[in-house]
Amino acid sequence: MKLVVTGAGGRMGQALIRIIAATQGATLHAAIDREGSPLIGRDAGEISGVGTLGVPITADPLTAFLNAEGVVDFTSPAASVEYAGLAAQARIVHVIGTTGCSAAEDEQIRAASRHARIVKSGNMSLGVNLLAELVRQAARALEAADWDIEVLEMHHKHKVDAPSGTALLLGEAAAEGRGIDLAQKSVRVRDGHTGPRREGDIGFATLRGGSVIGDHSVYFASEGELVTLSHTALDRSIFARGAVKAALWAFGQKPGFYTMSDVLGLSKT
Amino acid sequence: MKLVVTGAGGRMGQALIRIIAATQGATLHAAIDREGSPLIGRDAGEISGVGTLGVPITADPLTAFLNAEGVVDFTSPAASVEYAGLAAQARIVHVIGTTGCSAAEDEQIRAASRHARIVKSGNMSLGVNLLAELVRQAARALEAADWDIEVLEMHHKHKVDAPSGTALLLGEAAAEGRGIDLAQKSVRVRDGHTGPRREGDIGFATLRGGSVIGDHSVYFASEGELVTLSHTALDRSIFARGAVKAALWAFGQKPGFYTMSDVLGLSKT
Amino acid sequence: MKLVVTGAGGRMGQALIRIIAATQGATLHAAIDREGSPLIGRDAGEISGVGTLGVPITADPLTAFLNAEGVVDFTSPAASVEYAGLAAQARIVHVIGTTGCSAAEDEQIRAASRHARIVKSGNMSLGVNLLAELVRQAARALEAADWDIEVLEMHHKHKVDAPSGTALLLGEAAAEGRGIDLAQKSVRVRDGHTGPRREGDIGFATLRGGSVIGDHSVYFASEGELVTLSHTALDRSIFARGAVKAALWAFGQKPGFYTMSDVLGLSKT
Amino acid sequence: MKLVVTGAGGRMGQALIRIIAATQGATLHAAIDREGSPLIGRDAGEISGVGTLGVPITADPLTAFLNAEGVVDFTSPAASVEYAGLAAQARIVHVIGTTGCSAAEDEQIRAASRHARIVKSGNMSLGVNLLAELVRQAARALEAADWDIEVLEMHHKHKVDAPSGTALLLGEAAAEGRGIDLAQKSVRVRDGHTGPRREGDIGFATLRGGSVIGDHSVYFASEGELVTLSHTALDRSIFARGAVKAALWAFGQKPGFYTMSDVLGLSKT
Repeated sequence: MKLVVTGAGGRMGQALIRIIAATQGATLHAAIDREGSPLIGRDAGEISGVGTLGVPITADPLTAFLNAEGVVDFTSPAASVEYAGLAAQARIVHVIGTTGCSAAEDEQIRAASRHARIVKSGNMSLGVNLLAELVRQAARALEAADWDIEVLEMHHKHKVDAPSGTALLLGEAAAEGRGIDLAQKSVRVRDGHTGPRREGDIGFATLRGGSVIGDHSVYFASEGELVTLSHTALDRSIFARGAVKAALWAFGQKPGFYTMSDVLGLSKT
Repeated sequence: MKLVVTGAGGRMGQALIRIIAATQGATLHAAIDREGSPLIGRDAGEISGVGTLGVPITADPLTAFLNAEGVVDFTSPAASVEYAGLAAQARIVHVIGTTGCSAAEDEQIRAASRHARIVKSGNMSLGVNLLAELVRQAARALEAADWDIEVLEMHHKHKVDAPSGTALLLGEAAAEGRGIDLAQKSVRVRDGHTGPRREGDIGFATLRGGSVIGDHSVYFASEGELVTLSHTALDRSIFARGAVKAALWAFGQKPGFYTMSDVLGLSKT
Repeated sequence: MKLVVTGAGGRMGQALIRIIAATQGATLHAAIDREGSPLIGRDAGEISGVGTLGVPITADPLTAFLNAEGVVDFTSPAASVEYAGLAAQARIVHVIGTTGCSAAEDEQIRAASRHARIVKSGNMSLGVNLLAELVRQAARALEAADWDIEVLEMHHKHKVDAPSGTALLLGEAAAEGRGIDLAQKSVRVRDGHTGPRREGDIGFATLRGGSVIGDHSVYFASEGELVTLSHTALDRSIFARGAVKAALWAFGQKPGFYTMSDVLGLSKT
Repeated sequence: MKLVVTGAGGRMGQALIRIIAATQGATLHAAIDREGSPLIGRDAGEISGVGTLGVPITADPLTAFLNAEGVVDFTSPAASVEYAGLAAQARIVHVIGTTGCSAAEDEQIRAASRHARIVKSGNMSLGVNLLAELVRQAARALEAADWDIEVLEMHHKHKVDAPSGTALLLGEAAAEGRGIDLAQKSVRVRDGHTGPRREGDIGFATLRGGSVIGDHSVYFASEGELVTLSHTALDRSIFARGAVKAALWAFGQKPGFYTMSDVLGLSKT
């Protein structure tokens, strides 16, 4: 599958180039970066540390998309909307890891999926998306009166906010499984006299330290037993890896809008 | 729901009596023990430590099943087959936690489920059954080429066999999810020069110590990430608790043969 | 060793009677409860579920202490001060699990230790006291500039305060190891924009759910590695068990004031 | 502190060069590789990815050691013995991460420590060495009759032996703490009918999967409680990092033979 990498000069772009070079069935077709990038003209493989690939970085998406079969894209909302339009014209795959899209931008991306095969998720790791699906099902299966849900996350000492976006995504999955509104049930602080835990609450706890890339656990605690569903990120390449996996999967699908749950065959329909 | 407890003089029977006494919507209708038990005639509540219930232990199932709505039964295969026949005649619920049934006995129990609502599982804990379903789905979603599956269990120092029955049940769930035969892929011993792990293997590891009731973890390990699904038993009442939950659930179902996955709403159909 | 149990009618008193009955080298010499308790005159073994021991519960400590070799005591500060005085007169062992003593009461107990062998700790579990010592040493060995310390605890849904007393005890041990004041460095809440973790902070996180008796973990997180020291309570008998162990240990010691660290042979001197 | 890196062309050598470049108080004084290495003459910083350092790689230890204050050395036993002799002549620090030395080679290294400050350990990670010390102390404090010790390790799928060297090192630390011979008490396989756990045994269990760098846990399990001491390696730089830390520590010491326990201030004296 012939893939275009966008934002090729950035950290994610270079990770994507390395993963594509190492993935059977995928080849780097083109690599684009923003107009004015100092890397324009450099070999995409050389700047990514995998040796010469014969693919120079350009600033011209139109040419890059010619004869391509897919685009893997972690850039900005505005750029992703533009690339989605081009992917629709070319009837190809567009995997979007970009975050922060407005409702209007999401609408334009969905419109493009009438002709493009689009896969979009807030977190491209296969493991995190699997975990979210399992959490949703467990929360649906286990009654709130008997089972308490807690979400724990740990990240490196440089992280500046809490809880992590992925912890909130897992809390949302639990709330969906229970058919409740997370905002009304989430407990983010416990300090001093808290009183007993209220039925149906979803608690969050946060650890920070060292260079931990990202650990998440969801606890389902009942009288006499405890089910724990966890994910550990061992290196940051998993997002690039999941995106390339999604591109290969979408290659065989009909045009449409997909998520990582579809890639995993665990769609919630 | 009016429930009969069988084997009422045993450890499981007494746990069932305690849980029923504490469960809203359930009442102890009758309690039976084997002919000749020294507890015949004693009050079921008194011998279980929950105070007088006004239900004497008898050795007569026929009378006990009169006007009952369900039977909760952890006894022997022969006894459970007999009770299944009586439950079929009475068109009531029969929850069977008995283990060790032969194929012929299982056949008789299935025959009884034409008229009775039967729920039968090798492990009556809600959490373990949930875990097995999640493991099956995760194993189906994650490719064997990329994800290695390992099963770890820890039990108290008195346990005389390894791996535990529940560890094997979880390994079976993983094998089913992958569509493979566990016997051909399971690795139960690693010591000395093992060579690299073979793709598709399912590994087992065992810890023993202290008074640990039962901890089980299933690992899905890939390049850069790790998903871990775990269950911890905090006390032995969870089997009685799950069985009573199953009885209440089955009360509203059509006659048929069910498992704990049905009770959880996670049946694999 | 002939032991007196105080507060024999309470939950801890009865647990102590059961553990003493099951411990080689220990026998129940006397059992006392407060004046007016409805259990006065009943057999200590019968009310504790271990069968008749021939030791009636009395309200008279003076007689109880006659010929005794040790006292195990989880009562109130005022009662423990009185028992410490009697133990000093009798030159025997006094194990004190009572919490909430004022400075003045602690002073009186220390005075009694000129003649009595006193062991006093806020938590009588061997494992928790071991953990605290190991945390103190790890915190001393690992530089604050490179290693971040976090304390996580999980308890059942009925617990009404956070963090747990034991989590704070572990945080204190870490602060002592580092020679800092916990109050100035502890971080108990993280929610929203927190900024990066500050060097030297000790963070706390809390989980609540189900019937978890008490899990505690202390994390030491650095660039590239993580050391985690954990304790799990599997049942509530560990406090009685540790207290009886302490009594047997103190039997061979000189008069003085000891803690569970001394019992473990890990005193910080 | 002016440091010489040996084996500068290898994976460990380059990691050492990067860590030294990033460590306050340390500078790269010289970098040597074996005679005939294609990297002789190249800049040590450039080949390690940290930019030009102005230190060419040479094959001449004599010149390299001139005016140096320490040597950090992960090479071969024969080379390390030679470097230890040179370090003794120069009265400087020699940190040795080399493994596989014979008794005779170890003897020569110890002889050199009359004049050199030598730090030698089989595993240079601070966290693993701390863990081993804590395990030794816990094993000494907790009676074998009451506490069962188990060692669990997990590594990536490419590892070809089991248990890991570090798991055995932790088992040795536990055995030392108890004053027993590990070989006579270690249990490395549990499969089928094992019988109950024998008092005093030290059990090992192994997990393999994905890209896990190295996780180790030592369990102390008793009636009613569980203490778990764990180490997780998040990246492979921790060995280089620990070695540079050891060099800085040894700079202030008298000539002698030290281990990482000394560096941690946890020596077992």
